[in-house]
Amino acid sequence: MNIKNMEELLAAAKSKGPKRVALVAAEDEASLQAVMKAHSKGLALPILIGDKALIRTKAEQAGLALDGAEIVQADDNAQAAALGVKMVHEGKADIVMKGLLHTDVLLKAVLDKENGLRTGKLLSHVSVFEIPAYHKLLFITDVAMNIAPGLEEKKVILQNAVDLYHSFGLNDPKVAVLAAVEEVNEKMTATLDAACLAKMADRKQIKGAIVDGPLAMDNAISLQAALDKGIKSPVAGDADILLCPNIESCNILFKTLLFFTESKLAALVMGAKAPIVLTTRADSFQNKYYSLALGVMAAC
Amino acid sequence: MNIKNMEELLAAAKSKGPKRVALVAAEDEASLQAVMKAHSKGLALPILIGDKALIRTKAEQAGLALDGAEIVQADDNAQAAALGVKMVHEGKADIVMKGLLHTDVLLKAVLDKENGLRTGKLLSHVSVFEIPAYHKLLFITDVAMNIAPGLEEKKVILQNAVDLYHSFGLNDPKVAVLAAVEEVNEKMTATLDAACLAKMADRKQIKGAIVDGPLAMDNAISLQAALDKGIKSPVAGDADILLCPNIESCNILFKTLLFFTESKLAALVMGAKAPIVLTTRADSFQNKYYSLALGVMAAC
Repeated sequence: MNIKNMEELLAAAKSKGPKRVALVAAEDEASLQAVMKAHSKGLALPILIGDKALIRTKAEQAGLALDGAEIVQADDNAQAAALGVKMVHEGKADIVMKGLLHTDVLLKAVLDKENGLRTGKLLSHVSVFEIPAYHKLLFITDVAMNIAPGLEEKKVILQNAVDLYHSFGLNDPKVAVLAAVEEVNEKMTATLDAACLAKMADRKQIKGAIVDGPLAMDNAISLQAALDKGIKSPVAGDADILLCPNIESCNILFKTLLFFTESKLAALVMGAKAPIVLTTRADSFQNKYYSLALGVMAAC
Repeated sequence: MNIKNMEELLAAAKSKGPKRVALVAAEDEASLQAVMKAHSKGLALPILIGDKALIRTKAEQAGLALDGAEIVQADDNAQAAALGVKMVHEGKADIVMKGLLHTDVLLKAVLDKENGLRTGKLLSHVSVFEIPAYHKLLFITDVAMNIAPGLEEKKVILQNAVDLYHSFGLNDPKVAVLAAVEEVNEKMTATLDAACLAKMADRKQIKGAIVDGPLAMDNAISLQAALDKGIKSPVAGDADILLCPNIESCNILFKTLLFFTESKLAALVMGAKAPIVLTTRADSFQNKYYSLALGVMAAC
């Protein structure tokens, strides 16, 4: 069993929802569209935080009725972030969603020691792609949050993605730890980390996943490429999750998929007390909507 | 002016060819097909090096006549590599092409101090992609040869790609030095190297190229993405060459394009006295043919 496409993700989210979504700095048309569509589909109970008047204006411009949405006044973005995060902290919301504000402002509130959402775990970003040329959804991490993760950090990043996968209630995912080659090479740190992470999964230091690495990208997603190289691996050709060796490779992979393929995207930050929907201004309304559905899956 | 697609590459190669191609370990159907097609199109004068009888058998199996090809006996792959490389060294061939042998065996001959093809420069790999969603050929380096290049090595890798681009006789190429972000960040070496390489081009330490970086992948290949971020750059959205920050990111980019898009590929090793066509067993006949055409462009 696995998740084939965004339609299946949406169906799973519908059967789990609705969840209370705190949209921080809600004065943004595409975010309002996404959250109100999620409302109409039974995914979300919207809490719109920001400048009340401006939120109403933006909604009008987008032709959106805000029926069923709670609107909470905030005088600036920092206050909006603090309010949204505090609502989750106090059990009054299930998901934080980023609207029209800088990521750092939101994360500052998330990391606040008193009213924030710290769990002691590293935060990490997980992208979920529907790629026309692949046979199921592909999770990719970490494109954005951790600059130069070492082994222990990679372990947490991997575990965060695995935990997200398990919110779908399926079998253990297959995780490919990527490198430039499939052999362990002392001169290539990515291959050493990969070998260690695979063994950590064998020893249950990483839980609920079938992990193999080092694997090159082709071995991870093409069985034929793996067979051509004589690689025997339970993950090869059928990866659910790709753990990238560094932020550069993940970022380039992410943007290559976005700009050079007709892929659909959902993305979340994991590792906090609640999932954080951290889309960017450039994301389409549709991708924000998928991200929100993914947030519903990840919410308690 | 730029090179739009593989058809334009082939047309340019035809007007420059034919060049003498030493196919090392020629007992390989796809390589024989590529080199004999290149012969029929006026690109190549084939020199087939390997087990004469086996070469003839493979050609028969592929339905290929070997008219016009010189066949040179070699008793094993090491000898084939040494013979092919020596022919270039002595001015009897213009291009080395890898047939059915391990890359290290070929490179050992290339790097031989007496009869090899050293120039004192670093060898590096340049891939040239025709990507359906991009408006011209995109050069990508270095996917395979240099494990952890430092600044000086990146400079040579970049210059090798620029030199290859100039074999088409066009204006200076636009080079994007990739990182995960477009701002210089002391904690991210890729961004420091990128800033330095851009300045090295300003100071003519890198010649014949418009270089900018750090750029993220989206800024490099999408003008809209660059505008959204407020980036002013002569390269943004219109890169001819992408210099990747490390081998992992380049390898993942390369394989993502190969497996998840309908792209066409040509690839070469640059930096030796002659271009080396270093395709892999998994490459299609067609991609080997494009690589050979690219080799014709790079040959003296």
